[in-house]
Amino acid sequence: MRLPLLLAAAALLIGAAPAKITPNDIVAKSPASAWKTIPADDLLVMDLANGGRVVIQLAPAFAPVHVANIKALARGGYWNGATIYRLQDNYVAQWGLNDSDKGLPAGVVAKPPAEYTRPLKGLAIKPLGSPDPYAPGAGFVDGWPVAYSAKEGWADLTHCYGTVGVGRDLSPDTGTGGELYAVIGHAPRQLDRVIALVGRVVEGIDKLSSLPRGTEALGFYKDKAQYVPIASMRLASDMPAADRPTFEYMDTASTTFADYLRVRANRYDDFYIRPAGGVDLCNVQVPVRRTVTGERG
Amino acid sequence: MRLPLLLAAAALLIGAAPAKITPNDIVAKSPASAWKTIPADDLLVMDLANGGRVVIQLAPAFAPVHVANIKALARGGYWNGATIYRLQDNYVAQWGLNDSDKGLPAGVVAKPPAEYTRPLKGLAIKPLGSPDPYAPGAGFVDGWPVAYSAKEGWADLTHCYGTVGVGRDLSPDTGTGGELYAVIGHAPRQLDRVIALVGRVVEGIDKLSSLPRGTEALGFYKDKAQYVPIASMRLASDMPAADRPTFEYMDTASTTFADYLRVRANRYDDFYIRPAGGVDLCNVQVPVRRTVTGERG
Repeated sequence: MRLPLLLAAAALLIGAAPAKITPNDIVAKSPASAWKTIPADDLLVMDLANGGRVVIQLAPAFAPVHVANIKALARGGYWNGATIYRLQDNYVAQWGLNDSDKGLPAGVVAKPPAEYTRPLKGLAIKPLGSPDPYAPGAGFVDGWPVAYSAKEGWADLTHCYGTVGVGRDLSPDTGTGGELYAVIGHAPRQLDRVIALVGRVVEGIDKLSSLPRGTEALGFYKDKAQYVPIASMRLASDMPAADRPTFEYMDTASTTFADYLRVRANRYDDFYIRPAGGVDLCNVQVPVRRTVTGERG
Repeated sequence: MRLPLLLAAAALLIGAAPAKITPNDIVAKSPASAWKTIPADDLLVMDLANGGRVVIQLAPAFAPVHVANIKALARGGYWNGATIYRLQDNYVAQWGLNDSDKGLPAGVVAKPPAEYTRPLKGLAIKPLGSPDPYAPGAGFVDGWPVAYSAKEGWADLTHCYGTVGVGRDLSPDTGTGGELYAVIGHAPRQLDRVIALVGRVVEGIDKLSSLPRGTEALGFYKDKAQYVPIASMRLASDMPAADRPTFEYMDTASTTFADYLRVRANRYDDFYIRPAGGVDLCNVQVPVRRTVTGERG
């Protein structure tokens, strides 16, 4: 598709995309080499009793002890009888056993370390290229939106829409991973480096975000009758192979993602008439999808 | 409340709040003088047939022709028979007549000008104090989160959670105001300066955000049976005085708001252990509440 000459010239002058193209166009035309498969051992499948399914990608590179705990909790049947018991609008959906004194399965660390950040060393970061209000640096590592400080040597996962974190009480209790929440509103980045983040919802976030909001303080449901029962929490690797959902994410080190990021920051098409020239970390939305098999254009 | 000396010193060194205080504390202790009443003529009350109420504050200072249209549409009964027909997760809820060819009431401008920005001149902006990825400047004007360019002389309302905008087709059609949407996800700031924004939801956004998501492209409901009927759209000023909801917002030029903004950017209390030192425009959330009568501490 060609632009009228004057428009194309203007677009170049202001650093905008030189042609009308959308992020979806880039996904649609992406080569298979731009995608990476999520290991089945890193997919946590939460089936709700109402038939909804929520699939979570775990992030062992950022919170290894908490993620190992979550895998042990799933395998040990810890969440039998669990519910979604908190829905706070523009904030979080939270689930688990809610103050149960149920014992922890074997292998679960009762007091994990505060995995709020990890060493920056060893991470290859694709920079966001726009300023971040919450940290000296922001960008992407292996599909994850991260913030970091080169000076202080840390990196952390960030509280974007769909990010999953570990509920905890006051410091220094970091939570076992038995109570989890997912962000269902504008990114509450003030929680970054204050809580252990363990992953993100890759499918079914709408099954959480469309639930009724709780009317008690902090969005807790008032009556237990409002709790949403969870039928099962399983790792995909523990499901029969034929039943396993499989997902892939765009490799954030690929040239395809570089194109995607550039267009995200400079929307310009028949609808978008003024490219912003920047984008917020949590508004980039790294593409994740059900694994595509067969040819791509 | 006192901090241990070392912590207090550390907090001062990194520019954090010198005492443990939350944004809610500041609201709770605010003087009456820190609040401004929303005129009844600027409150649009949408009652859903299911009993839910959504109250919208209109922004005539930013989109005067579109806001005048909306008032004329409400008074002219244009939205009789309207529905919510689109729910796209992490994006918008949209309502109106959805491609009806119903005639416009008297006084409605069929082709309003593109009120995507307004002159910066005449606006007293309280700066955000953190970088904004989408514009050279960001801050607050009379309770509204805005972006601006001092060099180019424009200011605009921003697409934050709850912001209400005017659905439109491709440019240069700007929409009459008959089809409206509210943001129900992470701020889609790429839409700033591309669409006319006319206000924000001040109560009842959860009545939109908790609706089932549409399964068609862009979140449109597949069957008309899924449409959520709107019982009425009225200006509060047209309601009987005893029935009118009344709201006030924190004066963003007040010292109370300056405190609130500082704490929003530097959360530090029993839970928040690492102040971020910055905050995203749409994560500040200017306090708006039902009008408080009587004494405040």
